[in-house]
Amino acid sequence: MKEKLTIIKVGGKIVEEADTLNRLLNDFSSLPGYKLLVHGGGRSATRIALQLGIESQMVNGRRITDAETLKVVTMVYGGLVNKNIVAGLQAKGVNAVGLTGADMDVIRSVKRPVRDVDYGFVGDVEKVDAEALAFLIRKGVVPVMAPLTHDGQGHILNTNADTIAGETAKALAAIFDVTLVFCFEKKGVLSDENDDDSVIPVLTPDLFKKYVEEGIVKEGMIPKLENSFSAIDAGVAQVVITSASSIGSGAGTIIRK
Amino acid sequence: MKEKLTIIKVGGKIVEEADTLNRLLNDFSSLPGYKLLVHGGGRSATRIALQLGIESQMVNGRRITDAETLKVVTMVYGGLVNKNIVAGLQAKGVNAVGLTGADMDVIRSVKRPVRDVDYGFVGDVEKVDAEALAFLIRKGVVPVMAPLTHDGQGHILNTNADTIAGETAKALAAIFDVTLVFCFEKKGVLSDENDDDSVIPVLTPDLFKKYVEEGIVKEGMIPKLENSFSAIDAGVAQVVITSASSIGSGAGTIIRK
Repeated sequence: MKEKLTIIKVGGKIVEEADTLNRLLNDFSSLPGYKLLVHGGGRSATRIALQLGIESQMVNGRRITDAETLKVVTMVYGGLVNKNIVAGLQAKGVNAVGLTGADMDVIRSVKRPVRDVDYGFVGDVEKVDAEALAFLIRKGVVPVMAPLTHDGQGHILNTNADTIAGETAKALAAIFDVTLVFCFEKKGVLSDENDDDSVIPVLTPDLFKKYVEEGIVKEGMIPKLENSFSAIDAGVAQVVITSASSIGSGAGTIIRK
Repeated sequence: MKEKLTIIKVGGKIVEEADTLNRLLNDFSSLPGYKLLVHGGGRSATRIALQLGIESQMVNGRRITDAETLKVVTMVYGGLVNKNIVAGLQAKGVNAVGLTGADMDVIRSVKRPVRDVDYGFVGDVEKVDAEALAFLIRKGVVPVMAPLTHDGQGHILNTNADTIAGETAKALAAIFDVTLVFCFEKKGVLSDENDDDSVIPVLTPDLFKKYVEEGIVKEGMIPKLENSFSAIDAGVAQVVITSASSIGSGAGTIIRK
């Protein structure tokens, strides 16, 4: 039987404010067993870019990453945000190591081809080295992954944190019994967007299809759930969509086959 | 017999310019055997701080690190400079991992007590975890260390890169046969400051004492050499002072017992 591994993905908002970060560090450090954290950091990047006189350009919620913006995200995601989380976890007794995809070559990507939009220095994940991550995890080290990858030719590439979490979960599913937890603002997938307590407890492909047809699940939640089902199809044991403050509580929406 | 390990320390100037960085990456990747790189990044930190409207205050060549400056060095050393070196080395086939002292708790420090000068968030090294570094090194992973440590209580601290290199060399000397190479602008310790080719090939404690008395070795070179002899006393096999462009060539000044 495979050993259990929990992968938690948290957005920038959680890790960029002292209060929510501290709560996350407490909750995450209390999680039993093997674990891995993936973080965002977009708000800090936007703020520092602004301070440096660089305008942040977004298309479909994705940052256009020109050469100057790449420097900013490399600094902010790989340095400021990542190292503060790592130091914070060490203080809670978690032996964290901060990683970008370049570190130990854990995530190789290709620069996104220009089609309708030129996203610039943005990487689409090509390969996750699950063995390298497992080597650390089995030693009791907890990887803390910044949303940055590399192309193997010396270039860092900006990469969506949800994608990093999903691809890492898929790769590690070959070695571990993986639970992937996506944290966002709500307690789970809601059946009534005006009622924060209307969390759908379980979603299967059939239920998902039904809820989409009925208009209960819509907009940004659809690609998030499609990604979740794709992770399940690739061998991830379960995906949970919940709020950062519910990590480890068992609350949220569980996505299953 | 212990296995050999080469620790190279390069200053900011080398790693911040594309030409010299690329040459360093080539030379470093050609070095045989186990190796570890320690880098600075002060010039980039000063430049980014200036762009962010933060003035860099230096006392005795050390940066006064207030809260805002700490953010800058965490971004620049831990993110921008470190990750570009790591991605660059990966492109040369070197399986690098970027580390601050917080990562895997490799270097714990204490905030420098305020005496004549309040250096702010600056760390004096307390403990290097040689076992954690050796765990990576023996796997064929090459640590690339940024000049940042942590206090074990959640705070990153700015730490001199020469000190990181020296303390890391001392700790790893218990496990490996360590050669510590300090790269700077000149080809070695010069007997005539106006002649770049007047490199003193070997320095022993007696010769060092003699050269200091004769005024041949002076100023900033004295603490650098005192640090080198302290590393030798702590078990480091040899210390080499040379230029970045002479790495691996055997040139430079060798410091021995």
